[in-house]
Amino acid sequence: MNLADEIEELGRRSRAAARQLAIAPRAAKDAALEAVAAAIEANAERVLAANAADVEAAAHRGVAEAMLDRLRLDATRLAKIARQVRDVVQLPDPVGEVLRAWSPPSGIRIEKRRVPIGTIGIIFESRPNVTIDAAALCLKTGNATILRGGSEALHSNLALAECLRTGLGAAGLPADGVQLIGRTEREAVKLLAQLDRWLDVIIPRGGEALIRTVVEHARMPVIKHYTGLCILYVDAAADLPMAARLAVDAKVRRPGVCNAIETLLVHRAVAPDWLPVLGAEMRAHGVELRADPAAQALLGAECRLAEEADWDTEFLDLRLAVKVVDSLDEALEHIQRHGSHHSDAIVTRDPATAERFLNEVDSATVYWNASTRFTDGGEFGFGAEIGISTDKLHARGPMGLEELTTYKYLIRGTGEVRG
Amino acid sequence: MNLADEIEELGRRSRAAARQLAIAPRAAKDAALEAVAAAIEANAERVLAANAADVEAAAHRGVAEAMLDRLRLDATRLAKIARQVRDVVQLPDPVGEVLRAWSPPSGIRIEKRRVPIGTIGIIFESRPNVTIDAAALCLKTGNATILRGGSEALHSNLALAECLRTGLGAAGLPADGVQLIGRTEREAVKLLAQLDRWLDVIIPRGGEALIRTVVEHARMPVIKHYTGLCILYVDAAADLPMAARLAVDAKVRRPGVCNAIETLLVHRAVAPDWLPVLGAEMRAHGVELRADPAAQALLGAECRLAEEADWDTEFLDLRLAVKVVDSLDEALEHIQRHGSHHSDAIVTRDPATAERFLNEVDSATVYWNASTRFTDGGEFGFGAEIGISTDKLHARGPMGLEELTTYKYLIRGTGEVRG
Repeated sequence: MNLADEIEELGRRSRAAARQLAIAPRAAKDAALEAVAAAIEANAERVLAANAADVEAAAHRGVAEAMLDRLRLDATRLAKIARQVRDVVQLPDPVGEVLRAWSPPSGIRIEKRRVPIGTIGIIFESRPNVTIDAAALCLKTGNATILRGGSEALHSNLALAECLRTGLGAAGLPADGVQLIGRTEREAVKLLAQLDRWLDVIIPRGGEALIRTVVEHARMPVIKHYTGLCILYVDAAADLPMAARLAVDAKVRRPGVCNAIETLLVHRAVAPDWLPVLGAEMRAHGVELRADPAAQALLGAECRLAEEADWDTEFLDLRLAVKVVDSLDEALEHIQRHGSHHSDAIVTRDPATAERFLNEVDSATVYWNASTRFTDGGEFGFGAEIGISTDKLHARGPMGLEELTTYKYLIRGTGEVRG
Repeated sequence: MNLADEIEELGRRSRAAARQLAIAPRAAKDAALEAVAAAIEANAERVLAANAADVEAAAHRGVAEAMLDRLRLDATRLAKIARQVRDVVQLPDPVGEVLRAWSPPSGIRIEKRRVPIGTIGIIFESRPNVTIDAAALCLKTGNATILRGGSEALHSNLALAECLRTGLGAAGLPADGVQLIGRTEREAVKLLAQLDRWLDVIIPRGGEALIRTVVEHARMPVIKHYTGLCILYVDAAADLPMAARLAVDAKVRRPGVCNAIETLLVHRAVAPDWLPVLGAEMRAHGVELRADPAAQALLGAECRLAEEADWDTEFLDLRLAVKVVDSLDEALEHIQRHGSHHSDAIVTRDPATAERFLNEVDSATVYWNASTRFTDGGEFGFGAEIGISTDKLHARGPMGLEELTTYKYLIRGTGEVRG
């Protein structure tokens, strides 16, 4: 079968499975997840052998060690993956919730009920654990998935997908509730993005280039964030020791994640006292600073001058752009122009300034006196996270189970006509 | 300026205006809407002259009378448009509503607040009243709009857009909160659909060809319905006089609207008694029936046999496809395969059958013993409607003011770090 026909067939099967999953009771979905965890444990040897083959092939092709580490599974990591599936079992099922019920003057009774989205395409890169994570959250919410992982993890993903399908079957649910694309052609991404006849939404999890390709071709909604260019603004009225704590937390703890900060804006009134202190602390943590001229004058000549591109770069590394601003308005302008509308923070003691910042910064998550690192489904108490969105329709910010649902209107009447 | 640069500039201005509209208080937005209504009344002569020029040019090009009627404004229609703007003033403003507020174990306080979507592109066809309707709902919800109307209504739309911009200015809000594309090249639709740098969402209001073009090129979410292929299923346990009332209401009253039915499915058990009666009634209303062989045998030889394409056609006319089915399952299967997931209904006295239908039909609005014609923002009590969506993210079914909003998370802390 050619690739296009094969993907069309996956879509058709996914829609059929989604119809069954949509009406599956919570008990069946939870039983399936339990069976998935058990299948991962029972097939650990086979999964690890498949993964070892992937890692060996990648090493043979000269893939860097950091990348190999993302690809690699071992008994501990696999046990953790199974445990996380069991954690999802414990979470409440949002499907079926009545969001609103009312009766307009015509007499019909309207119920707005939470239902699964339907069919979800998920495109991801090298980490094989995403196969299980993403499919488990979609299964819990009654959605069918078509997964497309990185080609370097193909054998691992095939083995893990088999565990997912086994689990579904064990609970009497359709195995096609989870399907993995077993072909490695890049063309598959484009074909999946054009499968709007069968797919309701597509979620790319990966680098900006992958996301741009998906958006370019997609004929259905894409849930994504391109980058996490998060910005911390230290106001004239900031508690400066707090500002240093938040800056270090948000830059240093995990520089490679999307809710780490990339740019620090400092009000001119506090820059002379605070920036030299902050600079020393950042350097002690190995952070390279790139500053505008005003900040450089305070940070010392060893601090590199920022280039224009630095304000638009998600470094994902121990690197921080620093700029002195004259006002809250200048900070808001900079965030609007250069930020990625993901997570931005202000440090200030002045509530009026803080509320202006919270109101006017158009980002999924805006912070007053707290670290941007809290943008996370776990930290929000969602119990699980399929990703973080900078889109606005409809999932914004950390996405848990509720964000994998939509709603429908059920109307019960007694023969009403509109006339 | 070339077209691409011009549209890019509209986008840039729209985003700047959206930032101001997002924080405008309800009083300012309502004052702007009042001023828009007043401007329409004060400039009635100019608007009607512009419209007369459009109608004359269209008539000169041989445009059909039905189309001219959609294009034509007169004093009565214009007064109604102004009145509808004042109706929007009376509606509550959903922006600012706190959807949820909680504090997770880290101690940060999270507020999930309803905010405007931001910038909305609206592409529509000949009716000039859409210019005002759509912009008024977006203005009320703090969204900036870029409008692109049909070229045959260009002068009417320019005159109406001037009233909108005058109203915004009179209330101290940015006139660029509403911008109309004054160029008639078809290329403008494609350029607007690719303006994801500036536009958050695009809403095409028009025929299927227009919508397909937008979806093909769009790099942002598109809110739409392609067609309204609504289906009525008359069950074995139906109240047959009720079924006839609902079928006539949903087919005959306004055959050209999206919530009218196009297909009637009838259970085999009631078809022999009921179909001849219904057929006579439909014919009395001038409805042409197209039937499958089983239905044709009951409806008589003058009833035309349905072709395969008839099950997938939104007739938008006094025409109805009729099919006899053996079971609820066959009806569900037909609806899944041929329906457009807009509005579908069952007539039955059996609650268990009804609940299966309501649960299993994956449409924005599903009905038990009521006419599909109720799918409408006004009938739902939303007070206004920007359209009806068969999309699932996030606006589904009739879309009022709430559906023109999204949310953001505002987080207030006392120096919390994640560590």
